[in-house]
Amino acid sequence: MILRFDRIAMELPPPSDPDPAGAAAVQELMGGRFGEMSTFMNYTFQSWNFRGRQGARPFYDLVANIAAEEFGHVELVATAINTMLTGATPDSNGRRTELATKSPLADVKGLGNPHHFLAGGQGALPQNSQGRPWTGDYVFASGDLVEDLTHNFFLETGARNNKLKVYEMVEHPAARALTGYLLVRGGVHQVAYARALENLTGADLMKLFPTPRIPTEKIPECQPHIERGDHLRLYRFSPDDYQELAAVFNGPHPETEEELVVVDEAPEGVPPRDLPPQPAVFAPDYGPEEIAAIAAKLRVRAGLSKEPTGEVANGKAKASPRRAPRKKAAAKH
Amino acid sequence: MILRFDRIAMELPPPSDPDPAGAAAVQELMGGRFGEMSTFMNYTFQSWNFRGRQGARPFYDLVANIAAEEFGHVELVATAINTMLTGATPDSNGRRTELATKSPLADVKGLGNPHHFLAGGQGALPQNSQGRPWTGDYVFASGDLVEDLTHNFFLETGARNNKLKVYEMVEHPAARALTGYLLVRGGVHQVAYARALENLTGADLMKLFPTPRIPTEKIPECQPHIERGDHLRLYRFSPDDYQELAAVFNGPHPETEEELVVVDEAPEGVPPRDLPPQPAVFAPDYGPEEIAAIAAKLRVRAGLSKEPTGEVANGKAKASPRRAPRKKAAAKH
Amino acid sequence: MILRFDRIAMELPPPSDPDPAGAAAVQELMGGRFGEMSTFMNYTFQSWNFRGRQGARPFYDLVANIAAEEFGHVELVATAINTMLTGATPDSNGRRTELATKSPLADVKGLGNPHHFLAGGQGALPQNSQGRPWTGDYVFASGDLVEDLTHNFFLETGARNNKLKVYEMVEHPAARALTGYLLVRGGVHQVAYARALENLTGADLMKLFPTPRIPTEKIPECQPHIERGDHLRLYRFSPDDYQELAAVFNGPHPETEEELVVVDEAPEGVPPRDLPPQPAVFAPDYGPEEIAAIAAKLRVRAGLSKEPTGEVANGKAKASPRRAPRKKAAAKH
Amino acid sequence: MILRFDRIAMELPPPSDPDPAGAAAVQELMGGRFGEMSTFMNYTFQSWNFRGRQGARPFYDLVANIAAEEFGHVELVATAINTMLTGATPDSNGRRTELATKSPLADVKGLGNPHHFLAGGQGALPQNSQGRPWTGDYVFASGDLVEDLTHNFFLETGARNNKLKVYEMVEHPAARALTGYLLVRGGVHQVAYARALENLTGADLMKLFPTPRIPTEKIPECQPHIERGDHLRLYRFSPDDYQELAAVFNGPHPETEEELVVVDEAPEGVPPRDLPPQPAVFAPDYGPEEIAAIAAKLRVRAGLSKEPTGEVANGKAKASPRRAPRKKAAAKH
Amino acid sequence: MILRFDRIAMELPPPSDPDPAGAAAVQELMGGRFGEMSTFMNYTFQSWNFRGRQGARPFYDLVANIAAEEFGHVELVATAINTMLTGATPDSNGRRTELATKSPLADVKGLGNPHHFLAGGQGALPQNSQGRPWTGDYVFASGDLVEDLTHNFFLETGARNNKLKVYEMVEHPAARALTGYLLVRGGVHQVAYARALENLTGADLMKLFPTPRIPTEKIPECQPHIERGDHLRLYRFSPDDYQELAAVFNGPHPETEEELVVVDEAPEGVPPRDLPPQPAVFAPDYGPEEIAAIAAKLRVRAGLSKEPTGEVANGKAKASPRRAPRKKAAAKH
Amino acid sequence: MILRFDRIAMELPPPSDPDPAGAAAVQELMGGRFGEMSTFMNYTFQSWNFRGRQGARPFYDLVANIAAEEFGHVELVATAINTMLTGATPDSNGRRTELATKSPLADVKGLGNPHHFLAGGQGALPQNSQGRPWTGDYVFASGDLVEDLTHNFFLETGARNNKLKVYEMVEHPAARALTGYLLVRGGVHQVAYARALENLTGADLMKLFPTPRIPTEKIPECQPHIERGDHLRLYRFSPDDYQELAAVFNGPHPETEEELVVVDEAPEGVPPRDLPPQPAVFAPDYGPEEIAAIAAKLRVRAGLSKEPTGEVANGKAKASPRRAPRKKAAAKH
Repeated sequence: MILRFDRIAMELPPPSDPDPAGAAAVQELMGGRFGEMSTFMNYTFQSWNFRGRQGARPFYDLVANIAAEEFGHVELVATAINTMLTGATPDSNGRRTELATKSPLADVKGLGNPHHFLAGGQGALPQNSQGRPWTGDYVFASGDLVEDLTHNFFLETGARNNKLKVYEMVEHPAARALTGYLLVRGGVHQVAYARALENLTGADLMKLFPTPRIPTEKIPECQPHIERGDHLRLYRFSPDDYQELAAVFNGPHPETEEELVVVDEAPEGVPPRDLPPQPAVFAPDYGPEEIAAIAAKLRVRAGLSKEPTGEVANGKAKASPRRAPRKKAAAKH
Repeated sequence: MILRFDRIAMELPPPSDPDPAGAAAVQELMGGRFGEMSTFMNYTFQSWNFRGRQGARPFYDLVANIAAEEFGHVELVATAINTMLTGATPDSNGRRTELATKSPLADVKGLGNPHHFLAGGQGALPQNSQGRPWTGDYVFASGDLVEDLTHNFFLETGARNNKLKVYEMVEHPAARALTGYLLVRGGVHQVAYARALENLTGADLMKLFPTPRIPTEKIPECQPHIERGDHLRLYRFSPDDYQELAAVFNGPHPETEEELVVVDEAPEGVPPRDLPPQPAVFAPDYGPEEIAAIAAKLRVRAGLSKEPTGEVANGKAKASPRRAPRKKAAAKH
Repeated sequence: MILRFDRIAMELPPPSDPDPAGAAAVQELMGGRFGEMSTFMNYTFQSWNFRGRQGARPFYDLVANIAAEEFGHVELVATAINTMLTGATPDSNGRRTELATKSPLADVKGLGNPHHFLAGGQGALPQNSQGRPWTGDYVFASGDLVEDLTHNFFLETGARNNKLKVYEMVEHPAARALTGYLLVRGGVHQVAYARALENLTGADLMKLFPTPRIPTEKIPECQPHIERGDHLRLYRFSPDDYQELAAVFNGPHPETEEELVVVDEAPEGVPPRDLPPQPAVFAPDYGPEEIAAIAAKLRVRAGLSKEPTGEVANGKAKASPRRAPRKKAAAKH
Repeated sequence: MILRFDRIAMELPPPSDPDPAGAAAVQELMGGRFGEMSTFMNYTFQSWNFRGRQGARPFYDLVANIAAEEFGHVELVATAINTMLTGATPDSNGRRTELATKSPLADVKGLGNPHHFLAGGQGALPQNSQGRPWTGDYVFASGDLVEDLTHNFFLETGARNNKLKVYEMVEHPAARALTGYLLVRGGVHQVAYARALENLTGADLMKLFPTPRIPTEKIPECQPHIERGDHLRLYRFSPDDYQELAAVFNGPHPETEEELVVVDEAPEGVPPRDLPPQPAVFAPDYGPEEIAAIAAKLRVRAGLSKEPTGEVANGKAKASPRRAPRKKAAAKH
Repeated sequence: MILRFDRIAMELPPPSDPDPAGAAAVQELMGGRFGEMSTFMNYTFQSWNFRGRQGARPFYDLVANIAAEEFGHVELVATAINTMLTGATPDSNGRRTELATKSPLADVKGLGNPHHFLAGGQGALPQNSQGRPWTGDYVFASGDLVEDLTHNFFLETGARNNKLKVYEMVEHPAARALTGYLLVRGGVHQVAYARALENLTGADLMKLFPTPRIPTEKIPECQPHIERGDHLRLYRFSPDDYQELAAVFNGPHPETEEELVVVDEAPEGVPPRDLPPQPAVFAPDYGPEEIAAIAAKLRVRAGLSKEPTGEVANGKAKASPRRAPRKKAAAKH
Repeated sequence: MILRFDRIAMELPPPSDPDPAGAAAVQELMGGRFGEMSTFMNYTFQSWNFRGRQGARPFYDLVANIAAEEFGHVELVATAINTMLTGATPDSNGRRTELATKSPLADVKGLGNPHHFLAGGQGALPQNSQGRPWTGDYVFASGDLVEDLTHNFFLETGARNNKLKVYEMVEHPAARALTGYLLVRGGVHQVAYARALENLTGADLMKLFPTPRIPTEKIPECQPHIERGDHLRLYRFSPDDYQELAAVFNGPHPETEEELVVVDEAPEGVPPRDLPPQPAVFAPDYGPEEIAAIAAKLRVRAGLSKEPTGEVANGKAKASPRRAPRKKAAAKH
């Protein structure tokens, strides 16, 4: 089971010039064979299907815990796509009727993934850069631990390739921030799986790094994360479980020789932005203010505050009265 | 982002007579159009893509929170399938070599989903009852709130149909326990989406219930959950967020007239069973005890306990020193 | 546009011993690459996309008209499958509740196409014999007349192969009656496309017949149709249009030397059977009699007769007051 | 079975500036999950698989009859796409040879759906706006009447969303005329299914309208149809059958309060345009005039008129000698 | 380009008891993600797309040459499946007519892959064990040499897992002989790719072997090939090219410490059996002897021998007058 | 089995102005339903599955031999695509690091098939012009000889249509040279299958030619091949086998009346170009010169020459010491 918290892994830039063609490319990191849905689902299924997990606990914990982090990566890709699509259709200033009759989508005809507009509300899709859906065939879970780890190492390798190429193709700030972050975090997972294989077989896989030979140390958007030490850290994404990570994830980083570190809690994250309505595509409606009025009324009727309680990066919401600092909360357990 | 905890939503029966044909049927609840991967992914994408969420906060919270519960449902389906497949191949008593040369899979030739054995280690697959993979095309996220809720109500309706039919088809205790639970919990989600639509539009949808006309009150495996009140409760699956559920989820249950209730924390769950290795399919290896020896060594080297720290239902694991009772932990926040 | 009339092309036997495995095989004639959805959709798209159709009118009329007949063939395959599935689950005698709790689908676990029971109500699916869905990729419409006709000749050739093989595999009377009929009618279409190619190019294709070398004259279920002359006739499925069929469909039949004939109206067909509810799969509900009561009330409220007006083969329905004999009606135009 | 008549549901504008990118977008209404192939096939399969149909006759008639209208909608989408593609390649004035060697398709490289040109003859495809084929997985036919109607209501809701978005994206007159018409007719079907649900369960669904909140009364291309009253009418698409529509389709329209009406015959429709050959893509050939000469000869040989007998909007065809006014013809039955 | 020679890689047992369910399982080795179509196509595409191949010649030669061997593996899988299906339908002794009317396929209804009978002539299909088609999505060709080799090592690992599992499931002699051979040859390719990675990066991958931990030395059907030394040899499948294999493929075998060897020619292979007609499925016709008569006549008319010139294992064919012993022929170049 | 030789069927122009959109269109000839993967795989499977092949030897030889030529056609399409993509990303002059941070793929965002850059190394994909993968469903192998030949004739017909349309769409010299060649060779195969059908049935199919009515004699890029006589020749692609081609492939060419000819060896072909690295996409690496250094060292260590031994069109490679002129080598057998 999971607990969800309404924060994203890192701060993404706010919407700026919309980039539908770029958003279509970033979909590769969402629904492609090596996208984040694949990493999330591969490790999740492997953990669910893990037999004899007590005997292999450090490996089980590793796979199950990385799976949990990957959820946040899929979320981040979705957020970046949503950010890039924001503003691609004109706002109505509340005059939805005019909108509909004035071809608000004419400018995006033939541009990017048509489903971003025709099927969705300028939102992320479980599809790749060609508009083909993610499929369960991308999941590999043989049950054989060494084989699954070999797969995972390969999967992370392919994923890093994709990430850099999207970085090279898309200059939108949200895409750049996204790929800079994912390159660093994906690199950690790649090392983790290689280390797991080494620990099981004795084969020295550290010499394969970096693979592909991506110079993350030269990519500006990777730097904040490297400086923070995030290229060395595996976070524990659980209130109480997956405590044996350090049995596998340890030793020197294959590129920098710095020591790998297990952090005994999840990162704090940041509240996401509340992305503005796009009434031309009915998201969330042609008259969002009516929904807001209904919501306020319902809240009051239920004895809740009149203002929304959820925290967003760009809203004026009443801060959640109950949120304790993430770090402390985790420490308390 | 999520925190994962290593517990499943309810206790499932231990492995008994294996049922590969039944496991193939249960896959419909995993990777079918109306399976739990679909509910999980639909609500998750809708929450990620939710625009103007502050204005529509009670509805955002509802969708995002149900998404979190659905993860646990996918997990439960996987666990049931794994349980049903356990024992379908002979054990080797450590004599793997003989196994391989003695046709340990001959008995399952032509039986059930061949990928359970040829591709996986007698484990769950992201496929439906026909062996076809789950696909991103099953996700609907139009961005239009009323339309998404209409979809979700329909999705839960179709899902209930599937659940009862699997119940009718598969008599294995794990399948029965699973479907009994999912019928009750899915019913809650169906009510929740109908209530959301009512609150937004004024249409009285409660008269549609039950739909399909499933007499859950007569199904034995539903009773423990109904008696516990789980047909009335929406749990909050977050340490701090999604606090506006009660603004939408309230009023009388359409079938029993009892009051709907929001529970301000996630259910405790139970530790999963550690399902035994199936060496005929290399899960987790042909010599699981060697992995265990390596794991023990790694644990000690890392300064962890010699015994596995994870809690399982059927193991002799050292109890996690850090786990606080779930309820209290949540209350502390 | 179409007018639909509530009759099927030939009388099929009533439900007898159910045959789920046979029904799964017959699905090849529904949703397979060479199934009736394919013939229907291929010719329909070719007719919609036909450019310069006035200049090529006899050929346009041929393709458009055969398309209309194919609808009836898809319908007939559906009816056969529904017939074969009837009775595969136990009847409840109105005690639905007991049904659900007594594993009414246990007997069909692992038998045939699971979607016949889990996804549908013991009804036909747009899938092939492997449970894979029909896809638009089966449609060929190049716009090049000679090429499309070449395709159509090949398509009918492959379809005949499939039909005989299903005949050879499935002994259920409904499947036999179905394939006997389709072999004869498909043969006519195959001849029609070959004649069209001959008329356009001068190539003598009649020597290819029969292809595959199916001895329809020896297959008992083909005989009634051959005796009636249906192996020679192309019916005109339109009130007024497609009048140039005879410009293409003429000359001696390649196997029997009898003259090919255009019939200037559609066949009468027969009313379909009203197949009984299958409450174990909720078709049409767990309490069909309640629906009937509502329907009767609605009919009266709307000023219609108290009894159902539709004609079915096995019901006591009031005969439609308005139906004129099909033949005369057509003749009147 | 069906009778086909060679008319389309409404007059579409003639070819003007070709719009391959727009045509690619309009494909969503053809082969998308919510396109017209889906509505046609969903209702058709539901009607074929309808069990106990005499007892539920008004509902059976409704579904079966709407299915018949949907055929005309698929046809109309095809016609619009064909119209939009006309002229996208240069004409040859009979000099095909030169054409081929002069890159007549160079201008459409990278523009729209490549299959419009490489696979087809500038004709409609059974694909969506991403070039992915329609699939049988889009068909839902559970056999459970309430559930199928719930699905159908949702399907029409999603379809309306798609239609408006295509309207907003594509300014080509054929696309606008198409979507204006489909929005009105689709709205009628949406109301019909909601009414059916209300009649079966008592739930008041009319308050959900309009959903999505499309202001059809402000869309110019909807007006002719609204003025004619087509937003209130359900036509009966059968010579004699489906007479119980009025038992379900009645009461006030949810948006205008006008009374819903059943029209006891199909609309007359209009003859389609004969779209011109596009020799650069071999449609219908590189020398269409040769085909015409052959056709004329064949007609004469068969004792038919020398001129084509079929009626088209833009041809000089001899009017069909047999066509009676549609209205009268229907009335006669 | 290729030259094809009409021999298969090893002698397979003759048809014995047919095993349709087993043949369906063996399809995993044909059209599965890790089947031989995948290995063949992966390496072939990687070789075609290889940039800067002169600089990386030993690696290019390795990939291109293994691709050539894989063609023979796909062929062998096809041959095994065909062998296993032979006899699954009754022979007609020339009385085809009776056959068709006597349900010759009734015994295989619901058994194995229905397409073996309905779509094919009891022949191999480009599908996996679930009847799903092989797809180009199984090809990975990133262009990055290290990454492609990492993939190939993983692919061979997964392929070995599949091979052993098919071995464990299917006892038919043809399946056993096939998998015994493929386990040995696939093991060579796995070592080859690991060695290539080692040579490029210095990482010691030999310690990963065997992976999965298959004891090929205990599997009887592997022994003839091991005894012949085929677990150590890489053959050169080209008249003149791919001469740099030895630069990569060398050193001790990771399991036996024996030296790896490059053989400078292709293995001789053996002539395939001429599998008998299966007239119930029209393969190659319902009257094969008529085809034979035509063939004989055509041969004579063309000045060829009256008897067939091709060599088969079980025929009385005139030996090809031109065939030189394979070894010498190769040596001559 | 096959022998592979490192030559391509004809000389293609060197890389010039890159054309990603054109390359995306050419993919139709690779992975489309009528692309070269389809012709290759169709004939290959038909030959593997051929039952009673001794009796039908001339036909078996024909199908098996054409299959072998088709491999070379797939290869040629791949080569053309690779040529067209070369240069689409900027070269780094060895400064990879800068490359990555300077958006080297920005210019191809939204252009052509994104997988050419994101998934591959500017290399060919097993996909069609829409970016959808080739699938085993494109293979037809019924086992019925006449039916398979009918299919093959149709397949070649559709393939010629596609080839001309790609010719018409893409002006890049590599695409033009490719399609000019394939039109001529495909035409030969089309004639071959028509002749085979004629020889089996007596039907005169020659009158269908040309179909589609492509005036190859007017297409400049076809002329070199026609002048060489390649429109009349069937080459034998085997050292010793498939000697009965002439029994089927004979008589006058349907368009020119010239005599068809069997050539008793494979064409010589030409060495392919060594296409330059594209470091922006890591093909074959970010530092290709390091790979070259390793390769040189490995070669020497293995006792091979210091320089690469493979022959390429544009390299300075040491000529292979062993290559005998292809013609002579073949003659020797």
